[in-house]
Amino acid sequence: MEGTTTAPAARMILSGPLAAPVAERLAELAPDLATRVVPAGPLAAEDLAWADSWSGSALPANLPRSRVRWVHSMAAGVDAIVGALADAPGPLVLTRTIGAMPARIGAYVLAHVLDDVLRLGDYRAQQDRGEWRQLPADDVPGRTAVVLGTGAIGAGVAAALRAAGLRVVGASRSGTPRPAFDDVVGLAALPAVLPACDVLVCALPLTAATRGLVGEALLRRLRGALVVNVGRGACVDPVALRGALDAGRVRRAVLDVVETEPLPAGDWRWSHPRVTLTPHVSGPTLPDDVAPEIVRNRDLLAAGVVPETAVDLGRGY
Amino acid sequence: MEGTTTAPAARMILSGPLAAPVAERLAELAPDLATRVVPAGPLAAEDLAWADSWSGSALPANLPRSRVRWVHSMAAGVDAIVGALADAPGPLVLTRTIGAMPARIGAYVLAHVLDDVLRLGDYRAQQDRGEWRQLPADDVPGRTAVVLGTGAIGAGVAAALRAAGLRVVGASRSGTPRPAFDDVVGLAALPAVLPACDVLVCALPLTAATRGLVGEALLRRLRGALVVNVGRGACVDPVALRGALDAGRVRRAVLDVVETEPLPAGDWRWSHPRVTLTPHVSGPTLPDDVAPEIVRNRDLLAAGVVPETAVDLGRGY
Repeated sequence: MEGTTTAPAARMILSGPLAAPVAERLAELAPDLATRVVPAGPLAAEDLAWADSWSGSALPANLPRSRVRWVHSMAAGVDAIVGALADAPGPLVLTRTIGAMPARIGAYVLAHVLDDVLRLGDYRAQQDRGEWRQLPADDVPGRTAVVLGTGAIGAGVAAALRAAGLRVVGASRSGTPRPAFDDVVGLAALPAVLPACDVLVCALPLTAATRGLVGEALLRRLRGALVVNVGRGACVDPVALRGALDAGRVRRAVLDVVETEPLPAGDWRWSHPRVTLTPHVSGPTLPDDVAPEIVRNRDLLAAGVVPETAVDLGRGY
Repeated sequence: MEGTTTAPAARMILSGPLAAPVAERLAELAPDLATRVVPAGPLAAEDLAWADSWSGSALPANLPRSRVRWVHSMAAGVDAIVGALADAPGPLVLTRTIGAMPARIGAYVLAHVLDDVLRLGDYRAQQDRGEWRQLPADDVPGRTAVVLGTGAIGAGVAAALRAAGLRVVGASRSGTPRPAFDDVVGLAALPAVLPACDVLVCALPLTAATRGLVGEALLRRLRGALVVNVGRGACVDPVALRGALDAGRVRRAVLDVVETEPLPAGDWRWSHPRVTLTPHVSGPTLPDDVAPEIVRNRDLLAAGVVPETAVDLGRGY
């Protein structure tokens, strides 16, 4: 398709909680793009026949067999959409929203790293019991973080941590160097760098290759690291994580994502004293992130250019 | 004295908890500087007759009337030493330690700003009660911080906050522009910038002019700001702060310093739900910060150059 110009997408269905505000922004940014808001559920036959494109977060069940040839995910994580599109007939382009997410997730990770290094949790506990006592603490600069995933999100995490003085090593399947990182290693070299890491951040997409990747074998290499998951819940094996926490190989786990969300009541992670749990909030997507990316991708696709946020449906990211 | 070379200081008394490790470092860095460690209390007559210089944090009561002509404070805050030197006879140079303190205090302030903006305290409370709920939150970039004090510490705070995307306005007596800040205002213009500020940071030294400066008049201008004190406790009027918290003009107060340390048991700040209290730990001084600055200042003074950390004893900082 590269290089072949076509007419831009003209009729887009918008679904999900951001559908209405995104439609409003699109009316300003691309008045020639007609939109219909279908907040939830399967699409009516008439909508399916009308639309040439769709954007939302959860793919309507009957969309893959429609005339829609371009799907734009309002979220950065696309594993569910990739799965739903597995048996879609014919060529289909899937793009995803990045927006300000790398900076937001970077700030989230940095906040938890600083909280940990500066022992702010210990000081909160001291304040609760009326205790004034200075605790030994380390400096932030000179610490090493390993970030699993060197895509846009991983790079955003690296930028935030490097600005605070950490050394950041990225890890990816290929080990291709990226300017956002001090160093990048391939998965084969990852075990060797883990013992010296103070912070391990998972910023991976969920694919067959990354499911459970942060498991017993990797966690066994840690020596008291902080582990932060801002990727996908199922990339971390919860049984292995619990064992590593109890063995002290993981000092603390900060989990913004878990394999089943919301995390079921009674799960050990709600109450483990060294687990910090947040409800998938590190990288919120706002209407102002989505609409401009839809417009940009629409223009690129019409010009026959594959957008950089296009997902390789076979690879899954 | 500027321009007049003299023999470098040759005999230094070291006092306080860092005295022994600083003496060790000095033996390596400046073997021609003789040192004596006097951990605490007034100096013996023999020490007073021997020493030409002193370094520590709390000035021995009988030091001002000794032969010592150079005092190096191991801490950055020098108000107590300035007060103790008020009636010292003859010219005396007071220098202070900066070291990695600007970066450390910057990291401390940034940690609390991120915790506040990302609502991590609300998420900790939700985790405690087993609640999975996404809360509305703002982005960090685009927020404005006002930093009172544009010296080395204020500049370190500004650097950390600007790296995270905040706009940082400094405030100083003179309003002299400083490259570390997006803008600097004089004290007269300060009230006008406060209503739009999201974060107010106090990084002031304690002098007659700054005592209680963050009081009713300034706090009345805030519109729900986070207030962080990493300067001196007595720069903030606690009665005015409590009123501003209760009126919602201050959303949260993060106090690393208070006017009496340790904060007495029963003080309202131990238990106020919107006060975060830490025991003067934002800018720890380490032996590795102190010893190189002693050596550098000693060389500068011998060369007749006033070190940039020299304190104006009349002004108090």
